[in-house]
Amino acid sequence: METFAVIVAGGSGTRMGGSVPKQFLKIRNEPIILHTARSFSTAFPAIQLVLVFPQAYINTGKDLFKNFPAAKHPVFVTGGDTRFHSVKNGLDSVPENAIVFVHDAVRCLVSNDLIRRCFANASENGSAIPVVPVRDSLRILNDDNDSSVLDRNKVRAVQTPQTFQAGLIKNAFSLPYHPSFTDEATVFEAAGLKVSLIAGEENNIKVTYPADLDFAESVLNRLSK
Amino acid sequence: METFAVIVAGGSGTRMGGSVPKQFLKIRNEPIILHTARSFSTAFPAIQLVLVFPQAYINTGKDLFKNFPAAKHPVFVTGGDTRFHSVKNGLDSVPENAIVFVHDAVRCLVSNDLIRRCFANASENGSAIPVVPVRDSLRILNDDNDSSVLDRNKVRAVQTPQTFQAGLIKNAFSLPYHPSFTDEATVFEAAGLKVSLIAGEENNIKVTYPADLDFAESVLNRLSK
Repeated sequence: METFAVIVAGGSGTRMGGSVPKQFLKIRNEPIILHTARSFSTAFPAIQLVLVFPQAYINTGKDLFKNFPAAKHPVFVTGGDTRFHSVKNGLDSVPENAIVFVHDAVRCLVSNDLIRRCFANASENGSAIPVVPVRDSLRILNDDNDSSVLDRNKVRAVQTPQTFQAGLIKNAFSLPYHPSFTDEATVFEAAGLKVSLIAGEENNIKVTYPADLDFAESVLNRLSK
Repeated sequence: METFAVIVAGGSGTRMGGSVPKQFLKIRNEPIILHTARSFSTAFPAIQLVLVFPQAYINTGKDLFKNFPAAKHPVFVTGGDTRFHSVKNGLDSVPENAIVFVHDAVRCLVSNDLIRRCFANASENGSAIPVVPVRDSLRILNDDNDSSVLDRNKVRAVQTPQTFQAGLIKNAFSLPYHPSFTDEATVFEAAGLKVSLIAGEENNIKVTYPADLDFAESVLNRLSK
């Protein structure tokens, strides 16, 4: 089965306080998105990377990947107004008969093991959505400025790569856009399909805040020891 | 108004993979719990620390605090079977007419600013529960091995210090124990009171996994620059 990784680099980086979108910030002297892409090309050497960048950064992205060692040259795609539209643009480069990973560019700590488990589960069950327990107690805000406790044992935090049999997710993305489409799993479900949850990884965070860069560097340093 | 900090060091540290409870692991050459305690004694120099340790570690705890610079010598209390019982034991050392912070020993990155905001809000409103938005999409597990998306915009992750007018929380802790008492806010509510949420801090994590130690060290290094 052919594999494709749609890697979505949509961030404008504002929460980092700088002007460089966070997917281009460096960890161990290399932009985050290269670490992310390497995780996929290591797990599946024949994988086709489909890299989705905002219009303003697509040339920056192409430059970064000029010397990227991959069996197939990456495909570059321009993002849309929402994550839904960006992913839809990426899926246009993916054939029906494949397994496709949809991944956040800033989750650079994803392991080969998780990528392979997602592949196996999506091959068997149609999809694989990695989830982890939440660490903190949770409360839900009610309409009247009130809140109530939520049983965190029943809640899971959703990560990526959200992984699918390509024909199924491409078909789901032919639905008209709806604001409830906050990730790929919600689109898949809107098409009447059931998602399959698998165990994600504690370290597989979205690098969002400055201290996350240090966290990510620490994890990568530990791995390279 | 007098201030008390009940700091709960209940961890057995198993998720760190070592045999040292995580509150005793070192960051910048100092056990985590000392960083935590210092945050409170810096924010409120006259604060009374009430340190709750498991029976097996109470002497270790006393040794650590032998030379801790504080206006009032810390009080050491033995924990109970659950968090509820541990906190209840700590609250027995707190008078009615005070503001009390109940804090996780392993949240060593809490800022002076958050502690002071909790004080101000609890003084005015009876309680202050620091919360932050969640980073990831969330799903809720249903009874039939199914799951559905949860609107993460309505969900908040709960941190500590959970802060209260002492008379109110002591009264709430006179209720008989119930398994739904997962934190102090849930006990407060069970007594018929309404909790007041305030903005927590992204960095105010529970140090739980090995990479969290690196994260915490990075944050503390940045602060000391």
